[in-house]
Amino acid sequence: MRTQINRVLTGIAGVCLGMSAATAATAATEIEKVMKDRGLTEKNLLAAAQTYTPTGGRDEYIAFASGGQSGHVIVYGIPSMRILKYIGVFTPEPWQGYGFDEESKAVLAQGNIHGKEITYGDTHHPAFTETKGEYDGQYLFINDKANPRIALIDLKDFETKQIVVNPVFKSSHGGAFVSPNSEYVIEAAQYPAPFTNEYVPLEQFNEKYRGGMTYWKFERKDGHGRINVEKSFTVQAPPYSQDLSDFGKNASDGWSFTNSFCTERYVGGIEKGRPPYEAGCSQKDTDFLHVVNWRKAEKLIRAGKGVRINDHDVLTVETAAKEGVLFLIPEPKSPHGVDVSPDGESIIVSGKLDTHTSVYSFAKIQKAIKDKKFEGKDPYGIPIIKMQDALARQVELGLGPLHTQYDAKECIAYTSLYVDSMVGKWNYCEGKLLEKISIHYNIGHLMTMEGDSVSPDGKYLVSLNKLAIDRFNPVGPLHPQNHQLINISGDKMELMYDMAIPLGEPHYAVAIRADKLKPVIRYKSGWNSRTDSRSKFKTRAGREKTVRTPGKVEIFGTTIRSHITPETIEAEVGDEIVLHLTNLERAQDETHGFAIYGHNVNLSLEPGKTVTARFIVEKEGVYPYYCTEFCSALHLEMEGYLLVKPKGYKAVAGEIEEGTKYTQADYDKQVKTNVATQEVVDSVVAFITSHNYKDFPEVVSLVEDATDQLGFATEAKTKSEKFAADKDWQNATLWAGQWWQYQVKTADIGLRAKTFLEQNGAKKIK
Amino acid sequence: MRTQINRVLTGIAGVCLGMSAATAATAATEIEKVMKDRGLTEKNLLAAAQTYTPTGGRDEYIAFASGGQSGHVIVYGIPSMRILKYIGVFTPEPWQGYGFDEESKAVLAQGNIHGKEITYGDTHHPAFTETKGEYDGQYLFINDKANPRIALIDLKDFETKQIVVNPVFKSSHGGAFVSPNSEYVIEAAQYPAPFTNEYVPLEQFNEKYRGGMTYWKFERKDGHGRINVEKSFTVQAPPYSQDLSDFGKNASDGWSFTNSFCTERYVGGIEKGRPPYEAGCSQKDTDFLHVVNWRKAEKLIRAGKGVRINDHDVLTVETAAKEGVLFLIPEPKSPHGVDVSPDGESIIVSGKLDTHTSVYSFAKIQKAIKDKKFEGKDPYGIPIIKMQDALARQVELGLGPLHTQYDAKECIAYTSLYVDSMVGKWNYCEGKLLEKISIHYNIGHLMTMEGDSVSPDGKYLVSLNKLAIDRFNPVGPLHPQNHQLINISGDKMELMYDMAIPLGEPHYAVAIRADKLKPVIRYKSGWNSRTDSRSKFKTRAGREKTVRTPGKVEIFGTTIRSHITPETIEAEVGDEIVLHLTNLERAQDETHGFAIYGHNVNLSLEPGKTVTARFIVEKEGVYPYYCTEFCSALHLEMEGYLLVKPKGYKAVAGEIEEGTKYTQADYDKQVKTNVATQEVVDSVVAFITSHNYKDFPEVVSLVEDATDQLGFATEAKTKSEKFAADKDWQNATLWAGQWWQYQVKTADIGLRAKTFLEQNGAKKIK
Repeated sequence: MRTQINRVLTGIAGVCLGMSAATAATAATEIEKVMKDRGLTEKNLLAAAQTYTPTGGRDEYIAFASGGQSGHVIVYGIPSMRILKYIGVFTPEPWQGYGFDEESKAVLAQGNIHGKEITYGDTHHPAFTETKGEYDGQYLFINDKANPRIALIDLKDFETKQIVVNPVFKSSHGGAFVSPNSEYVIEAAQYPAPFTNEYVPLEQFNEKYRGGMTYWKFERKDGHGRINVEKSFTVQAPPYSQDLSDFGKNASDGWSFTNSFCTERYVGGIEKGRPPYEAGCSQKDTDFLHVVNWRKAEKLIRAGKGVRINDHDVLTVETAAKEGVLFLIPEPKSPHGVDVSPDGESIIVSGKLDTHTSVYSFAKIQKAIKDKKFEGKDPYGIPIIKMQDALARQVELGLGPLHTQYDAKECIAYTSLYVDSMVGKWNYCEGKLLEKISIHYNIGHLMTMEGDSVSPDGKYLVSLNKLAIDRFNPVGPLHPQNHQLINISGDKMELMYDMAIPLGEPHYAVAIRADKLKPVIRYKSGWNSRTDSRSKFKTRAGREKTVRTPGKVEIFGTTIRSHITPETIEAEVGDEIVLHLTNLERAQDETHGFAIYGHNVNLSLEPGKTVTARFIVEKEGVYPYYCTEFCSALHLEMEGYLLVKPKGYKAVAGEIEEGTKYTQADYDKQVKTNVATQEVVDSVVAFITSHNYKDFPEVVSLVEDATDQLGFATEAKTKSEKFAADKDWQNATLWAGQWWQYQVKTADIGLRAKTFLEQNGAKKIK
Repeated sequence: MRTQINRVLTGIAGVCLGMSAATAATAATEIEKVMKDRGLTEKNLLAAAQTYTPTGGRDEYIAFASGGQSGHVIVYGIPSMRILKYIGVFTPEPWQGYGFDEESKAVLAQGNIHGKEITYGDTHHPAFTETKGEYDGQYLFINDKANPRIALIDLKDFETKQIVVNPVFKSSHGGAFVSPNSEYVIEAAQYPAPFTNEYVPLEQFNEKYRGGMTYWKFERKDGHGRINVEKSFTVQAPPYSQDLSDFGKNASDGWSFTNSFCTERYVGGIEKGRPPYEAGCSQKDTDFLHVVNWRKAEKLIRAGKGVRINDHDVLTVETAAKEGVLFLIPEPKSPHGVDVSPDGESIIVSGKLDTHTSVYSFAKIQKAIKDKKFEGKDPYGIPIIKMQDALARQVELGLGPLHTQYDAKECIAYTSLYVDSMVGKWNYCEGKLLEKISIHYNIGHLMTMEGDSVSPDGKYLVSLNKLAIDRFNPVGPLHPQNHQLINISGDKMELMYDMAIPLGEPHYAVAIRADKLKPVIRYKSGWNSRTDSRSKFKTRAGREKTVRTPGKVEIFGTTIRSHITPETIEAEVGDEIVLHLTNLERAQDETHGFAIYGHNVNLSLEPGKTVTARFIVEKEGVYPYYCTEFCSALHLEMEGYLLVKPKGYKAVAGEIEEGTKYTQADYDKQVKTNVATQEVVDSVVAFITSHNYKDFPEVVSLVEDATDQLGFATEAKTKSEKFAADKDWQNATLWAGQWWQYQVKTADIGLRAKTFLEQNGAKKIK
């Protein structure tokens, strides 16, 4: 038996990679043993092979999930299901310096509500910018449900660039959804409220509370995109709880669809003995799908047919009804997702409290509108299209259908079944359920690859489960979420991987082909990443300075392996400190951090970035600062002191007394070390330059970095030799030490390059 | 070829799991294809099998890594390398409600520095509580380098319970380290500073700046542990930059070891033309290992030999030197880790700028102390033991040795090599380098399983790399960290897995056997999790109330699937709102959240928890609130309104006008639905009770939850029937709807239980 396995797996290895028979045989025996020990099935091994990504490997797709009430966006790779980044969006995040430097504070401050600082968000629905209905990999939008806002994330650097506050809503679940050419982003209201900011009693709910859909105008030029608040507008809707939306595409381009719940317009009050909202909001068999002609709405707004509420253009529900902008169609009760098919012809809605999923036909809807065939009007005068006149078909899928995503295969869709804890695969053209698979547990949304675009890729499906319960090792009463990866490339759905979400509660996710993303690895030197422009506080090497004016100390400083300039900041109690720091590094991944004791100052400086910290020193004392990133072997020594003197402090005469004194012997010894180290450096350089390193971009950038470091070494050497000539052995020795530090950095980078060349089959050149 | 593979993998399946030959053959073909398509080697497949964890599987070890400047602690499983949780420690984290509810705000406020709120931490070194030198799985400590603090995390619920601020340090890298019976936790200073809080110029660095080691007293009784600030003390040290520490154990119990760098006592000033710290702090060939007799220090403190500085007991450097508490031994320059061997006899130190690692002998150190054999004293009067008198041996390992961890195998240790980007495996008894493995890239610390305990498990090693560079799909200039899992169970080290750290920069990590952790899944009802006691604001079902006093509205409310009580909160502009909420749920993973528009209120309520939000309503208006967790099919309807009236507002007469009116026909229809639903519920119940469900604890707790829900259904049914008897069809219909809601919840839970039984081989009982 064992021999057979060895022979066959040896065969695999032979075929695949030309391993030696002996090595492969050993591995085969080991795999057999591991499977037994860990209780893995054949299917598990297959799933392992399909998802395991060896060191340096790449994922095919990159998913962006909302982080729920963590306020972040979560980025992970598919199929490895490794989380690659949490992007700070509505919540300050110190690792990224987000909400700590003045540049990012300015972004967060855009999101203040009635002047109040909000330090979290409840992110729900991320959406990519699109070009002709295809994800273009440029930007990502995400909403905040708790405080209706939309944020814009730049996929060049995975940073949040803008936050806009909805001027009329008090809640917004259903955003962001992007039009096929990213002209607009929908943010729909959820819990109805007055559009103005005044108090209106619940007794006037029907008359004065309203819902609606805001169309945020997005503009981009020369790779720079921002939401234009002035050109954005809202189509007002009745006080139904609007929910998710989708833009029409292809056939239905120019239209958008928003569903709703609680069209009963129920007002709860369990504390007064009234049945709770959950009872009153789910009583009718149907709610309303809102159908909006947004191009017409846009024209009406531009033509001045809107009203201004809170400095924002609103097309009132009366105008929207009268002008043929807004129509309603009954939909099964308490729906969540509304999802337009890739060709734009089908609009699929599922009501969580109905076992059916409903396929609406855009052509039928248009015909009813054209024929003015309505079953009546709602209490706000909006024409209601009869359900049967708009439906293509309904399909019984199971309990708690919720959200639908599309496959690359024609007419194939996947719908999450919350109560069943299953995913249903079905044919929406034929109205036929094909297969169901169990998930763990209680799925909310689901996601196929590029599933919201005009050309979904299928391949993988991720089930965004709301409960993990027993899936992972226990970590206390608050559980992680469970994202389950399902293989949909074959005829049958196959569960592949359970992934824990360690922070936040993702609601919705979108996945893009990895090769569409082209993030930068460094900024142009002296860059304000939040405004996408050169910082006016950028500082070049050697140009660092401290500017003192009464009550203010302004520093233009720099960071580089392994020192911060300046290393001393002196101030008086009460001074305002304005600290601009530029990271001079050009090397990939050479981020420096900056923290000062006791002042809540914490910065992240990616290569090229300039950031500003602003604070008042309120108490006298000694406040060390340092680089928080382990950036080189000497990173602990990347330090300095903020010294805050009492007001009117009179300096005591004296100089810094050297803790250790150096002699000519020390200098000579250091130089000897440096000469020996240079030999190591030279041997590494010789190895690199004798190989075809220029064929490896990773190594070319390492060589550039090493060359920089060696340049610094030469500068320090010159200083050292100058002091030695003056017989100033203290400075001569210390600069010789600094010269050596740069040599060590050069060697570090050089060795990394050498290892890379060795491991990646570099060839000797003649 | 294919036939052979099929036959053999069929064989594996047959042997391992009794799969059918046909199924296994198909899978085998697929594995072959996947390996080819994804370019996987035989070794990759083995690593995949060793790390892949199928749905519901458990990890062997749970690692706790510091989150660096994210201020969190990161929890992940080994070998799956899935991150299970980020625990909020020094940084507010909204998903957990951490820093949003008053209970956790009180914990964070313990960490204020000179009265200033600090909203991040730079976490460095986590450490478990120990009993007899073994990890006991009760608590975890972690330090903040930027603002010298220690936090205590309870492993019962993975929550932060306490933060203590170091009263004398202004920086602290080297903490936390725990004594073998958790009596004390070491936090060592890093950048020297005056112990008092006044300004002292750098010219007085040698005379007035100091370092030291704080010994935090930890006490636990009846499962409740806290740091006792009053009984904690500091052993002062010279202004060398103290770094990492370790407690002695077994042979060396009663002693502790702390290393240091910059014993040159160099003061930088690159902005004034002085060589930077990195040069001046790495000039000497050696720094000092600090050897502390902490039991003697404790006795001296208790005997009143300390001085009080900032209300804290300090053993001055002079007393420590004179009384035989503190000794110094030269160590290779710029060391980082100091690591005591499991038997306590060897103390291993590596200097990052020396290619050797040094093994000190505790016996030799004790002999030198006993014999009073010193090579002299440092400028502060501390006896210096000659390096040769304390060293057992030195071993040349490579460039940039940094930190050492121990194996289960005798005399085997692993040392990280930062500059080499390698891990060295060596025999520290024989002084022999055994093997080196490349990592990617620039490793800082490393971790073996239970590697800091008296009985390390070996098995796995994690390399905590400082640079990821090209290991993952790019996500912008700020890269994730890369934790690489290495198999050390065999003769050769084998790289198994690359794991991205998506948030924060872990410095150090510790891993514990998973079965030692026994976290709870729910709190006792009405629990203040931060003080570990019953909340005085706990509220039971039916006892909810709103208490109004002038200027204040105090609410005692509850949450349960799917409503919040109360559903309306009325207040006047300027009122203080104090909102106590208790989550009535007992079911595992049934957390509710709570967010209010515009007021920065965001709570997380795990089952049983009581939390409080406190805020002022500053502006009139309508502010929706809702549950932020997707807790049931009706979670969107778990909503309410905070209504803020202008001061002196006169109520307009009138009642809530029902948006939808119900008749007897509606009532009858709902009842008919309920009867049908009850049949589904009954059939599920019949299935469950006809199987041996009591053998499955997961199902037993689901059945308990379902029984609760069904009880609620009965209550709603009673109400509904009462209103029907009175011909109040509005209330009768709505309560019938609520009755149905509870039925749906029952069915949801029941179906989950049924699926579990089906998938886990439950048997029919007679």
